[in-house]
Amino acid sequence: MEVIGKQSHFFEAEVLCANHNAELLVEQALKFKPNCVVIADESRYDFVKSALESSLTKVYSGTEALSQVVQMETVDIVLTAMVGYAGLKPTIAAIEAGKTIALANKETLVVAGELITRMAREKGVNIYPVDSEHSAIFQCLVGEWHNPIEKIYLTASGGPFKGKTRDDLEHVTREQALKHPNWTMGAKVTIDSATLMNKGLEVIEAKWLFGLKPEQVKVIIHPQSIIHGMVEYRDGSVVAQLGSPDMRIPIAHCLAWPTRIDGPAARLDLAKLGSLTFEAPDADRFPSLALGRQALETGGAAPTILNAANEVAVAAFIAGQIGFGGIADLVEATLEGAERRNATAEPQDIEEALAVDHMARSLAHELLPEIAAKSF
Amino acid sequence: MEVIGKQSHFFEAEVLCANHNAELLVEQALKFKPNCVVIADESRYDFVKSALESSLTKVYSGTEALSQVVQMETVDIVLTAMVGYAGLKPTIAAIEAGKTIALANKETLVVAGELITRMAREKGVNIYPVDSEHSAIFQCLVGEWHNPIEKIYLTASGGPFKGKTRDDLEHVTREQALKHPNWTMGAKVTIDSATLMNKGLEVIEAKWLFGLKPEQVKVIIHPQSIIHGMVEYRDGSVVAQLGSPDMRIPIAHCLAWPTRIDGPAARLDLAKLGSLTFEAPDADRFPSLALGRQALETGGAAPTILNAANEVAVAAFIAGQIGFGGIADLVEATLEGAERRNATAEPQDIEEALAVDHMARSLAHELLPEIAAKSF
Repeated sequence: MEVIGKQSHFFEAEVLCANHNAELLVEQALKFKPNCVVIADESRYDFVKSALESSLTKVYSGTEALSQVVQMETVDIVLTAMVGYAGLKPTIAAIEAGKTIALANKETLVVAGELITRMAREKGVNIYPVDSEHSAIFQCLVGEWHNPIEKIYLTASGGPFKGKTRDDLEHVTREQALKHPNWTMGAKVTIDSATLMNKGLEVIEAKWLFGLKPEQVKVIIHPQSIIHGMVEYRDGSVVAQLGSPDMRIPIAHCLAWPTRIDGPAARLDLAKLGSLTFEAPDADRFPSLALGRQALETGGAAPTILNAANEVAVAAFIAGQIGFGGIADLVEATLEGAERRNATAEPQDIEEALAVDHMARSLAHELLPEIAAKSF
Repeated sequence: MEVIGKQSHFFEAEVLCANHNAELLVEQALKFKPNCVVIADESRYDFVKSALESSLTKVYSGTEALSQVVQMETVDIVLTAMVGYAGLKPTIAAIEAGKTIALANKETLVVAGELITRMAREKGVNIYPVDSEHSAIFQCLVGEWHNPIEKIYLTASGGPFKGKTRDDLEHVTREQALKHPNWTMGAKVTIDSATLMNKGLEVIEAKWLFGLKPEQVKVIIHPQSIIHGMVEYRDGSVVAQLGSPDMRIPIAHCLAWPTRIDGPAARLDLAKLGSLTFEAPDADRFPSLALGRQALETGGAAPTILNAANEVAVAAFIAGQIGFGGIADLVEATLEGAERRNATAEPQDIEEALAVDHMARSLAHELLPEIAAKSF
């Protein structure tokens, strides 16, 4: 909202949506005067409705409404920033209506990358990345569409536990895992950053966004989060995108592309930073990254299962049911369990992908007690 | 030659030129079978002529011939890689004939930046940079022509004397100055790297290549020479070009643009490198960089005088006539002397620029004994 608020000649907020946070939705609606708002949580409808009574903004409620408002004729771009698997349905609805997608919900491509990208191609819809690493890759590809990519690098800060041993990691608390050194994000994404599952999901997202083979997508640990992504070309030249860790940069790039608009992000001062460091990720201490890559290589339903199991596992960790190491253990156990049940065939449509997701969540819940018992 | 030799379906060497090195010219002519060769040193004409007797390659000689061959109808791109001021005339001849310029001779734009870029605009000629830093900037601008540049960063290795005090620098020998830590280059460019005058000249070159104000062109010390240049945009995003310090990357980029061709340069391995470091340049220890920037800001004939005085000073240093610190001293004294003589008006055409160059060389030679006396 900060990005578009400063560019009112360029952008207009047509629809605003929120899950539970009715107060912020009302505040933003009064400021940005959208055509309509959606509060997904129906129990907050009355609050929002009465708060906006004297405004011209229409008020809708419920998750079904999300898939309807994105199709409104007056909508050009849909910024899909819902957490987890919930973002899938409204994103599909927006693509079906031919809207440009600003994608901040990586699970959409993890759960149904092949189906979504095929649908976008058929509808002539562009999907632009909001994720800072993927925005970086996009910025490094501008003007180079005709040149084949040799490989890309997604950088990873390494999260708050970069220096820890595998043994230390067993005893990590929720409070520690919820503190990210460089970025301020929601709980789910912050935990994913601490396990490096976030990077595992991003590897899968990158494969679909940029049409790459799994082995072309590399991850490198870069604790300062200054270089966000790099593209290596066939001549050995590497183009990188750098910037302060400030999500306003990728959001503005995604919304205004191909125009760059003035932004308030702190300017980079490399002389003051002094040094940028890099190391190879340690698959042993951070098994989630390896699980992500393995799911991508396995293909079929594996990425969908990975994502579903991870959502269950992170929720269980936040609820205090399993330890930090239990997150990857539960994801791995769920992937193995699905394989034993021969439930890993490629979903042929969105309904099948949703069924796989459902199956994987049930399976993860079934396996949870066993992992919990090992965890503490 | 290595770059185009590997891409024979893409490139053909039509003309090859050399100054004194007749042996290498003959070797390359026999391999690449150009339409003609030019040996600038007329005393080597007979050697080249007889060595190529049984080939179809024509042989010319003398510096005048350089300006003629670049205008040949069968020539598309002229790679101008002569050292110093000597490259100016053939480059102008090539622009007049409408040839694309691959510019490795930075002095051309330092001596006559305004005149050359105006001529190129009038003739619809593109000047593409070969210099690694400027090639980096070019690569960071691809696809972004419509977006204003906030600033650019040229990186500088800092040369072989980065860590030295001003006092140490007084006692630097020729042999030390001729050893560059990262790049293998000719004597003049290597000495310019050690004094950082190279970067002073590059700041001026960048201003003309990319149409920037002096204050938009920044220099940052980066000893590993991995990031070659960066562009900062108005949104705070920075795009950088990285690569092994291997001139085959920028040469290939410049010749084949907008296509990237396969190249043999070693692939970058940031995890292996471990860290990239940065610091602000020290104007006190390396006054040549400040002199370059000052000449750019003064404008008029100052950059032409700077370059001429520097060529005299570097030759005097290599000849053992002045010490390392004397190089910047002589350049500074020449700039001041020209100002006292009111000889700093903007050259209006190439003849005037050449006259300024001539005047500055005489003046530098006049001032040389005084600097030499202070040097030892």
